[in-house]
Amino acid sequence: MQALKDRIAAEGRNLGNGILKVDSILNHQIDPVLMMQMGEEMAARFTGHKIDRILTAEISGIGPAIATGFVLKVPVVYARKIKPITMSGPVFLETAPSHTKGVNVSLLVAAEFLHEGENVLIIDDFLASGKTLAALARMVVSAKANPIGAGCVIEKSFEDGRDYMVRNGFNFQIESLATITSMDDGKIVLA
Amino acid sequence: MQALKDRIAAEGRNLGNGILKVDSILNHQIDPVLMMQMGEEMAARFTGHKIDRILTAEISGIGPAIATGFVLKVPVVYARKIKPITMSGPVFLETAPSHTKGVNVSLLVAAEFLHEGENVLIIDDFLASGKTLAALARMVVSAKANPIGAGCVIEKSFEDGRDYMVRNGFNFQIESLATITSMDDGKIVLA
Repeated sequence: MQALKDRIAAEGRNLGNGILKVDSILNHQIDPVLMMQMGEEMAARFTGHKIDRILTAEISGIGPAIATGFVLKVPVVYARKIKPITMSGPVFLETAPSHTKGVNVSLLVAAEFLHEGENVLIIDDFLASGKTLAALARMVVSAKANPIGAGCVIEKSFEDGRDYMVRNGFNFQIESLATITSMDDGKIVLA
Repeated sequence: MQALKDRIAAEGRNLGNGILKVDSILNHQIDPVLMMQMGEEMAARFTGHKIDRILTAEISGIGPAIATGFVLKVPVVYARKIKPITMSGPVFLETAPSHTKGVNVSLLVAAEFLHEGENVLIIDDFLASGKTLAALARMVVSAKANPIGAGCVIEKSFEDGRDYMVRNGFNFQIESLATITSMDDGKIVLA
């Protein structure tokens, strides 16, 4: 998606250790018009699938998930990382390492918001190691729903997340709106 | 906003101690179509103001802020509660008590995303005590920008947040899309 690639090229910062700063686009400041264009592009990538629901992870997955959900007219559920006081009843719980925090984080979804038999599209801001996407996909499977695919705003392909997904049994369609093939030597190389 | 009130009446749960569960609408699951209608309504309430930027707080403020920002075509900034590794440089830092967590939380906005002289609309999911809104407004003032108003999805008017804002010097326009006047006796009384 060229508009996104242009913004990453202009505003992205390579902080080292594979950390990409895109706070002006995705992780702190949001351009809602670009965000909605991303939602349209994401929805277009999954044309042909019947999608009942979108699952994402707080915090920075929420924007792209809402934009995609608005285009597809389906509910969006965002996995919580800390159990809120309002979360009662059974939950699906998975853990995944946080790329930027260096620790495992919990992902929690109330069972009432993942329904057996539904087709679920997983959306997140980044695809890096694939471990967050896989954790979200495991929740969908736990709910006896169908993870029909995953869409990410930015993929760091050099972290081999797609291979990780396949090795963990998730052979579904994966789409990224921008792919970074290398962050060596302080660069940001866009595919 | 009648569509929102209908959803709160149908799906809201009074968990006691003034805690309202609206996880199916706002805090865990989102209906993106309703969210966009909220954005349109919020933008309409502030017609006549020149708005340059929207400021909200993660997590559940993000949805309504993006929706409003999409209608107004302005950038949205969401205050972080934990400093992400990508946040470098000076920040505006305020604290506010969390209504659902019972502790003070930090609110952090990178100085690069609040600009002197801009007109900033503050958006959040709830207006209860007013302390989060006031913390966000203090950040705007710290940046020498102008907090022109605040819009909340749900106001719990019995917590007197509007009075708190005025007592703290924030006499700007405050709008709520749905107002709950009482949660006594397990009820949810909508204005």
